[in-house]
Amino acid sequence: MLVLVTYDVNVQTPEGRKRLRLVAKTCKNMCQRVQKSVFECLVDPAEWVILKNKLEGTIDPEIDSLRFYYLGKNWKRRVDHMGAKEPYDPEGPLLV
Amino acid sequence: MLVLVTYDVNVQTPEGRKRLRLVAKTCKNMCQRVQKSVFECLVDPAEWVILKNKLEGTIDPEIDSLRFYYLGKNWKRRVDHMGAKEPYDPEGPLLV
Repeated sequence: MLVLVTYDVNVQTPEGRKRLRLVAKTCKNMCQRVQKSVFECLVDPAEWVILKNKLEGTIDPEIDSLRFYYLGKNWKRRVDHMGAKEPYDPEGPLLV
Repeated sequence: MLVLVTYDVNVQTPEGRKRLRLVAKTCKNMCQRVQKSVFECLVDPAEWVILKNKLEGTIDPEIDSLRFYYLGKNWKRRVDHMGAKEPYDPEGPLLV
């Protein structure tokens, strides 16, 4: 299934900038970054529980925001893109 | 139906900062801002065509990115939130 993760982290403090890096790092392990604070995560339910718990531990819930959008298995018909950074296919060949 | 709009606009130039404001302004008319560059748009198909065309005209496709995620009618079960800015219900009472 595809889960979209979007976030706003308050970066007015050094701690905030550290949280921002940690959120991105946590996502990078299992997801594809498609915009600065937007990641697409192709995960199974068990992987998602692990990732979600990790993410919960990275933010300050008083001032940071994490939003998750569950796009399901048929996610390809739910995603559209305009502009820079050509869309990629998380299930496509890994270009190295 | 709910359409999620996320965007990355290159703000290294004054023109870029102007485009960023225009994208946000275009979204604000029909959508709810949930994060800095994330809007949730409760629109019917005809309204979406209008909004999408307007948005296409606001960005520089070489350096800016717009992504649209179609969450359909049963969008409530597809959205999850953690942290600041309590979730709102675009179909709920407008608090003024």
